[in-house]
Amino acid sequence: MLIRRLCIVGVGLMGGSLARALRQAGACAEIIGVGRRVEKLEKAVSLGVIDGYDTDIGRAVAGADMVVLAVPVGALEHCFSAMDGHLATDAVVTDVGSVKRHVLDAAKAALGAIPDYLVPGHPIAGAEKSGIEAAVATLYRDRRVILTPAEHTDATALERVRAMWQATGAEVVEMEAGYHDAVLAATSHLPHVLAYALVDVLGNMREHTDIFRNAAGGFRDFSRIASSDPDVWRDICLTNGDEIARVLARYREELETLEENIRAGNGDHLRLVFQRAKALRDQYANGESNGG
Amino acid sequence: MLIRRLCIVGVGLMGGSLARALRQAGACAEIIGVGRRVEKLEKAVSLGVIDGYDTDIGRAVAGADMVVLAVPVGALEHCFSAMDGHLATDAVVTDVGSVKRHVLDAAKAALGAIPDYLVPGHPIAGAEKSGIEAAVATLYRDRRVILTPAEHTDATALERVRAMWQATGAEVVEMEAGYHDAVLAATSHLPHVLAYALVDVLGNMREHTDIFRNAAGGFRDFSRIASSDPDVWRDICLTNGDEIARVLARYREELETLEENIRAGNGDHLRLVFQRAKALRDQYANGESNGG
Repeated sequence: MLIRRLCIVGVGLMGGSLARALRQAGACAEIIGVGRRVEKLEKAVSLGVIDGYDTDIGRAVAGADMVVLAVPVGALEHCFSAMDGHLATDAVVTDVGSVKRHVLDAAKAALGAIPDYLVPGHPIAGAEKSGIEAAVATLYRDRRVILTPAEHTDATALERVRAMWQATGAEVVEMEAGYHDAVLAATSHLPHVLAYALVDVLGNMREHTDIFRNAAGGFRDFSRIASSDPDVWRDICLTNGDEIARVLARYREELETLEENIRAGNGDHLRLVFQRAKALRDQYANGESNGG
Repeated sequence: MLIRRLCIVGVGLMGGSLARALRQAGACAEIIGVGRRVEKLEKAVSLGVIDGYDTDIGRAVAGADMVVLAVPVGALEHCFSAMDGHLATDAVVTDVGSVKRHVLDAAKAALGAIPDYLVPGHPIAGAEKSGIEAAVATLYRDRRVILTPAEHTDATALERVRAMWQATGAEVVEMEAGYHDAVLAATSHLPHVLAYALVDVLGNMREHTDIFRNAAGGFRDFSRIASSDPDVWRDICLTNGDEIARVLARYREELETLEENIRAGNGDHLRLVFQRAKALRDQYANGESNGG
């Protein structure tokens, strides 16, 4: 058995899907959930996602050999403090947050140093739905999980987290935490901000009923991620603000140039940018379908 | 038979899908395609989309009782000129372009006045793929088609275009051309510009290989429309530039405010905007699934 006792802090889409996947893979003997609201935890038990629960993190992690923090990144520091002194000697701690430097900062703030048993992780999996009802065993299958170990991270801890994710069907890669945060600011954090902003702008327009009624597939796809959890994304914007603001500034410059060229009727510039983007997108989309 | 002889100018995704849908519905006796490249027209014949073709618009429209202009909007003025004097007395002309005031302007420029037989139309259907190979009979099923008749548009012409689209399974609505262009600037034209800009910005970043490799589902959905035809979208930006620039300016303001709040670490503002957008998007998405 890969994991004796798994403790999942935050039993929502991400944590619940991990629990389902590990149970289906037979990788886990017992799963304990932690949350603040008993009715949600009872729901998770009745759905068969977890075996039991506790609202107290310190009590819940006792005896667990694997602890997964699946909470908004702003709650991590509190989790580290609450677990301090209660972890089993062989416990490994990992998380699923979208900002990785902050995990290390939160641990340092709570514990004075980055513990060797901590392996920050980030599964690149869609999460515009939230809640335990949306959790599925296949969420991480063929998806990428990025681990960002620190300098002193224990090699065995790293291997155990890697094995856990591989058991869900994910592909595991390693990356430096700061590099991860710069890349994800561009690929994930920026698009989420853009989608929220788009829906918000259109919702404030005079014609907004006709706008939403006549929205085409492009808008639907574009705005889907605006259904993501506002607390999760506020925390991401607060903890990876420098990187997000940087790429947002570059994006605003690009839009300003496009707007100038639209106003000037400069079709050649517009066509050049659109062609360049299409070529990149088509190349990327083809690579993806080849890669499975 | 609804249509005796259908002439489709521009046998790509939009025109080809219309031909397939009308043939499947038994609404059309004969379909003639018009294009500049013979190999594409031969392909459309071999795929059974059209019965015959001509590279000369004037010859092709002779005897047609329905002419559909399915070309980038920048090519419409030329089409009107080329058809002038060749149309059958009972011919109706419509188009599928995403900018509707421009259709009227192009007709006026080519013919000196807006002809009564012209019924501008716009099917709201996804078109990030292009080319005759992507044409399917179901493209317009349960989609909305907006017709924007002018003051003197012939009532019979309007009814015939309406009946044609209904035969494809679409829902037909009417709207004033200028209002259509303002609404579509927000729901469709702006998202396309944003998607092209996003892929272009990310493609120019130092880490762009890792960016595309680690892109999540949100980015994939968001950037899908950046695969759209650059010529089509250049023409849309040129012919609906005022409306697009206006909504783009509002969007850039929203992004500027978000960036300031991200830099200032103002979580309350971010959460407020994200919540407002999520509520709107969820409401809209639910309404859509109810509406079928």
